[in-house]
Formats: sequence, C-alpha cells, structure tokens
Amino acid sequence: MSAPLGGGTESWVEGAGGGHPFGIDSLAWGAATLPGGHEPRLVARIGDLALDLAPATESLAPDLAPLVGGSSLNRLLAEPAQTWHEVRARIADWLSERRHRAAVEPHLVPVGDLRLHLPIEVADYVDFYASEHHATNAGRLFRPGGDPLPAAWKHLPIGYHGRAGTVVVSGTPVRRPRGLRRGSDGEITYGASERLDVEVEVGFVLGSPTVAGEPVPLEQAEDHLFGVCLVNDWSARDIQAFEYVPLGPFLGKSFATSVSPWVVPFEALARARVAPPPRDVPLAAYLDDSRSAPGALDLELSLRLQGTELSRPPFAAMYWTPLQLVTHLTASGATIRAGDLIASGTVSGPQPDQLGCLLELTRGGSEPLELPDGSRRGYLEDGDTVVISGRVPGRDGRPELSLGEVSGTVLAAG
Amino acid sequence: MSAPLGGGTESWVEGAGGGHPFGIDSLAWGAATLPGGHEPRLVARIGDLALDLAPATESLAPDLAPLVGGSSLNRLLAEPAQTWHEVRARIADWLSERRHRAAVEPHLVPVGDLRLHLPIEVADYVDFYASEHHATNAGRLFRPGGDPLPAAWKHLPIGYHGRAGTVVVSGTPVRRPRGLRRGSDGEITYGASERLDVEVEVGFVLGSPTVAGEPVPLEQAEDHLFGVCLVNDWSARDIQAFEYVPLGPFLGKSFATSVSPWVVPFEALARARVAPPPRDVPLAAYLDDSRSAPGALDLELSLRLQGTELSRPPFAAMYWTPLQLVTHLTASGATIRAGDLIASGTVSGPQPDQLGCLLELTRGGSEPLELPDGSRRGYLEDGDTVVISGRVPGRDGRPELSLGEVSGTVLAAG
Repeated sequence: MSAPLGGGTESWVEGAGGGHPFGIDSLAWGAATLPGGHEPRLVARIGDLALDLAPATESLAPDLAPLVGGSSLNRLLAEPAQTWHEVRARIADWLSERRHRAAVEPHLVPVGDLRLHLPIEVADYVDFYASEHHATNAGRLFRPGGDPLPAAWKHLPIGYHGRAGTVVVSGTPVRRPRGLRRGSDGEITYGASERLDVEVEVGFVLGSPTVAGEPVPLEQAEDHLFGVCLVNDWSARDIQAFEYVPLGPFLGKSFATSVSPWVVPFEALARARVAPPPRDVPLAAYLDDSRSAPGALDLELSLRLQGTELSRPPFAAMYWTPLQLVTHLTASGATIRAGDLIASGTVSGPQPDQLGCLLELTRGGSEPLELPDGSRRGYLEDGDTVVISGRVPGRDGRPELSLGEVSGTVLAAG
Repeated sequence: MSAPLGGGTESWVEGAGGGHPFGIDSLAWGAATLPGGHEPRLVARIGDLALDLAPATESLAPDLAPLVGGSSLNRLLAEPAQTWHEVRARIADWLSERRHRAAVEPHLVPVGDLRLHLPIEVADYVDFYASEHHATNAGRLFRPGGDPLPAAWKHLPIGYHGRAGTVVVSGTPVRRPRGLRRGSDGEITYGASERLDVEVEVGFVLGSPTVAGEPVPLEQAEDHLFGVCLVNDWSARDIQAFEYVPLGPFLGKSFATSVSPWVVPFEALARARVAPPPRDVPLAAYLDDSRSAPGALDLELSLRLQGTELSRPPFAAMYWTPLQLVTHLTASGATIRAGDLIASGTVSGPQPDQLGCLLELTRGGSEPLELPDGSRRGYLEDGDTVVISGRVPGRDGRPELSLGEVSGTVLAAG
C-alpha cells in the first residue's frame, strides 16, 4: 500500500484518503439501490462515493463475489473474522493502488445517488443497559425511592432481546405507537403514547457464528464484532412503565428501532480504543478485562432535534465494553448468528448536556427543553425529526472517522 | 370429499382417516430429511406416513411448488391465510380422493424413517405469561411479600422477546447453562446453573406479514395464526433471578427453547375452541373478546420426566387467548413477519397436579418430587429427559388430535 497521507492511508479517489471521515481508513459497508437499479446491493463507501461490490468483485476477484454479491452483509458475516479482514484489505488495495483504477472506477457511484437500506438481515437483536449514568438516572425516574441501580448491575451487563423485525434504516418515518398506559389520575386507558422518547445508542453488527454451549471468551470477542453503527431505540415511556414488570420492555420498544446505514468496520476503530471506567466491584473471571487491551471506545455522539443539538453523550463513559457485551451474551451457551445486532443501551455521561434520552434530559418530562423556535419539549411531538450522529475523534495525528447518522421523523398515531 | 369416517374425514391411506390423531383432519406440517436425502424438505403428516411435498406438488400442482418446495414453512407463511387454507385443502384432496392415489403414494414415507428438523426459520420469538395460576405462583416465589400478580397483568398479556437463534427442534440435547447467580449464602458466583427448570408451553407459528403501524384487530388475529406446536422454555431459575430486574429474563432463558416438530394447522383446532375464563377487570376495546367467538383452546398437556408423568397442565385455563396474544403483539404498530413464533408462557392450572414447571411443582426446589426409582428432584439433573406432549381431546363425536411431543435431555455443563 502507499504511504499514509494526512495522517491516514492514500487513495486514488480524490479526497477519499485517510483524511476523509469516510475515507480509505474506514471503508464503511452499506446496502443500496443504485440509480436505475431495483434490488439492494452491497457497497463499500470511499469518501463521497460508494463502490458497487457485485460488479467490482466479479471483474477483480470472482472468488469474493459469493460473499459480497448479495443484498445484505449476512453472507460475509457467516465467515470467520479473518475473511472479513481479507476482503476489506482487498477492497482497500483496489482503492489505493493506481493500477486498479481503470477496472474499479466504473463501479463508483456518488453516495448522494444511493437509496440506502438496512445492510443486514437482523437475526437476533439484543439491547443492553451499559451506561451507569443512564441506568442510575432511569432507575430514579422509573423506581423512585428504590435503589436506582439494580443489584446485579455492576456484576454483569444487563440486557434483553428486542424485536428484530422492526429494526429499520435511518430515514424511515416512525409512527407514534398506541398502547395501554396509566394516566396521572391513575386511570388505565388505551391511546397514543404521550411520552415518546429517543435513546442514543451505539450498535454492533455480529458475525462468525458460534456453537451452542460454547461461550466466547473475552479475548476472542473481537472476532465476532464485525462493525459499528448508530441506533435510535425509540421508546414509549408511558407504555413501557405500565407493562415492564416483571418481564421487561415489550410494546414500549417493539414498534421501531432505527439504525444508521453505514456499518464502520470494527477493525477501523482501533484508534478509538480506550480503557473503560474503573470497576467498582470485582468482576467474574469471564468478564474481567483488567488485564486485557483497552476495550472501551472513545466515540463522540450528538443528539439533535430539528437541528438543535440537545446533548453530546460520550461513549467512552460506558461501564461495559462491547467486548464484554459479546462475551456475556454467550456466557450461558447461547449462540451468535450472522446478522445478530447488539446495542449498548442509552449512552449518557455524567454532565447534564451528556444525557442520551428525553426521559433524562427533561427529568421525566417535568423540566421541558426550550427549542430555538420557542416551543418546549418534554417528549417528542408529531413531526419532530431526531438525528443522532457520531464520530471517532482525531487522535495522535490520525484524523477523525465518521459513524454517519441515524434520523427519523415522528408520524401521528394511525 | 368423501363422507366422514369414525367421526372424521376419510383417507385412502390406511388408518389415517379422521380417527387417527395425526390423520386427515390434522395434516400437520413438518420439515424432514428423507432416507438418502441431504436437505430438509417440507412434509405433511398423514397418519404414520408423511407426504414429501416437493415431488408431490411438482407432479400434481406445479403452481404450489414454490410455496412448499423449500426446506421450511416460511415461503408459505409469507402468503395470506386464504392461501394456507387452499394449499391444505389441495393436499387433503390428494389424500382423500382415490383417483390421486397412484400419483401420490410414491411420495409417502414412514414417519419413523424421517429425521425431523425445525419446520420454520424463526423470525422473532415472543414468550408470553398468559396463565394466571403460573404468574401468581411464580410471583410468590420470585417476589415474596409483594403482590404476586403484576399490576398490569389482567389489563394486558405480559410478554417479552426471547432468542430466536436458540430455538431448537425436539430431541436436541440441552447443555446446562453457566451464569452468575447468588447462592443461599449471598455470595455471587459464576458456575453451572443449580436450578435448571422446564416450562410447559404451547407455541403458535405466525405468518401473513403485516405493515408497520397497522395493528391486527382481534377479529382478524386468526388470519395470522398458521399453526400450533409444543414448547419447552428451558429456564435457569438461579441465573434468571439474579439478572431479570428491570429488563426481564435474558441468559436464564436464551440458551435453548425446544419445540415439537409437527405444526398442527390452527384451522384443524376448531373443535378445541372454548370460552376463556371469566375476566376480572374490564378489558380495553382492542382486547375485549366478550362478544367474540370462543378464543381459548381446550388442549390437554402432559409433562413427563424419565417417563413419569409429573403434571397435566390444562391449556383451557389460560387467561389470555392466542387471538389476544397476536392482537396485543401488534397493538403498538409492531409488524408480524413470516416465521414469527409466539409461546403462551408456562401453562399451569389451579390444581397441584396441573403445574407446568418445577419451580411451581417443588415450590422453588423446597419440596422435591420423588421419582419411581427413589431419586428426588427439586430441579433437573444431568441426564434427565423431559417430554411434553399434548392433545386435543375428542369432543362431540369427533376423535382426538395429537400435538405430538417435544423432548430434550440435559447435558452436563461444558
């Protein structure tokens, strides 16, 4: 490969070297309908362009075509991590070595011309609860008077299964759900949620399937972490509060979960790896990362409503690392399948401008936020547009990487 | 079709008329590897034989081949219910009308020669909590001193998402899970579950996909209920008890869920429809079945350990009906996909010999059961074999139908 340029690697695609937030150092994966096309195809993003992988591999590396020739990442995800790295290295080679330019350039499409789709067929979706700040704040609001942090919280990453079938790609409108909820007068009625919220989360696409009864050790967790995306875990707080004892959230979360369209390879995030916060209780051996390489990720997130930034949740503050989430998920012997999606749970930091949901930002709606147009928000109103974006900040002379964004607009209840 | 025989319909397959518990009145669906075959294929059970649907449809009804020619029911499940009924009627016609015998008979295989597989690719798996007796008993044991029935319990069917990727077919051995649990001395340790349990449940295979934001009204719920199976929701009570607050069961349930291999068409269960128990609180309009046709199902279940019957849970005692479970699942706007699986939750009746899990049968392990060999069981031991079977009792001169059985043997922790 060529020498690094501007802190990153070089590409013959103009402006798409390592200095571009979606450049050659990232090579994010996506699925898109191309101009004039009818079926989604896999693409690799290179700067402001995307490489159409089916024809590119057919001409340059037919052996790869079965892995990346479909409409989702699932075939590639069924392979071991070594194959992911090899495929990515091949694509990087095509985009950095000038001798490939003539063969590759015809298959580059401007990102703006793509219709983006969900890049994975979601197998199982698991949502965790890995921010101590969020868990504490939510505990105070959901269970006033009790211990805000559940007894098990610092012993294991608490999580639950969400609805894989309602994971949608960024841009999909989200209809306000209806459900049963208890009003402030104690009356239980069915109707449109009055406490529709967002949750700023980071998602991880998993692959390299495992065998039942064989947990993934912490030191091998990275071999199942294919890539990273952003997640908005829409939540109807009133529906959730009424239904969630004792089996957890159900209809309050199952109507929609939005994800960003570009999956940034986990290996591209090496520059973001940092040590997690100090552990307050000794961890069981299977979760103990005190002698491991840093497993937390320094990602900067942003939550905007109608373009106004409401908060900047810091992912580095998460108590549990993505590696621990993967290991815990399999600790009982449960398998990982190609296309599993796990999410971090709401990302909240210790500061008031670092909270990842309206429940926390407005203290359960009791302290509404004021927007620049003078309107106030306890929870979301119909027509509101929420955008979550994320980035890996530049560090040690290496430029920043982008995680893109996940957006969604609230439709009135049907 | 020919006249009914022995209370049911006639078939030219010997002994497989309406009097057979898996006869022409049922036509249960399965997926099986045939002798000498390599890939699972769809089959329709007729008595002690199974019809190999790919070659049968290719010769008799090529228009149906795309729907039933694959290795799972999912393609058929993607069609509207009217198509399910039409396909079933065509198959019934082949097996009842003698003029089809020469064409059909070569594609019949003895059930004993089949290797049975999971007949669906599970999309989302949801487990409910629909037995008042179970919820009350479990509440007393998990939350002593509190109100055993959660506040919302009689207002809506409480449920949660389980792990679709670890749903396995009957006969698959189940490895005892490991996890964190709190011992009687208060110590939190990681190790093999000491409280491995079963849950006797009934499962429902769903199809006829819906659109986001468009709930299924109660009177249309039946159009999404393709068929019925038996479910063993294996549960590690010690792991579950430690982890489940506030987001519900996770590793305590995610290691395995076993289902019976034969999916009995929901329409075959018309003879089992009965009125549900009286409702103690008024139901929201979307769940109100007081003016609907009877939605509960009179199914008789049996739980056996090493062949000894431990209990006979009555499904007719369930508070919430399958129709209500489907409607509630979509009430927030969540979609149904082809291959969704929902389960009832543990089926327990009011009597001591009608309890559907060891947690209840042994009062949390404190009153062990004695088996004929003199051994005692609070919870399951390695090597234990659990079999859940079920039937639709004969009624009004119509003979019984079988739901088959789901079995599993416990392997020692790895």
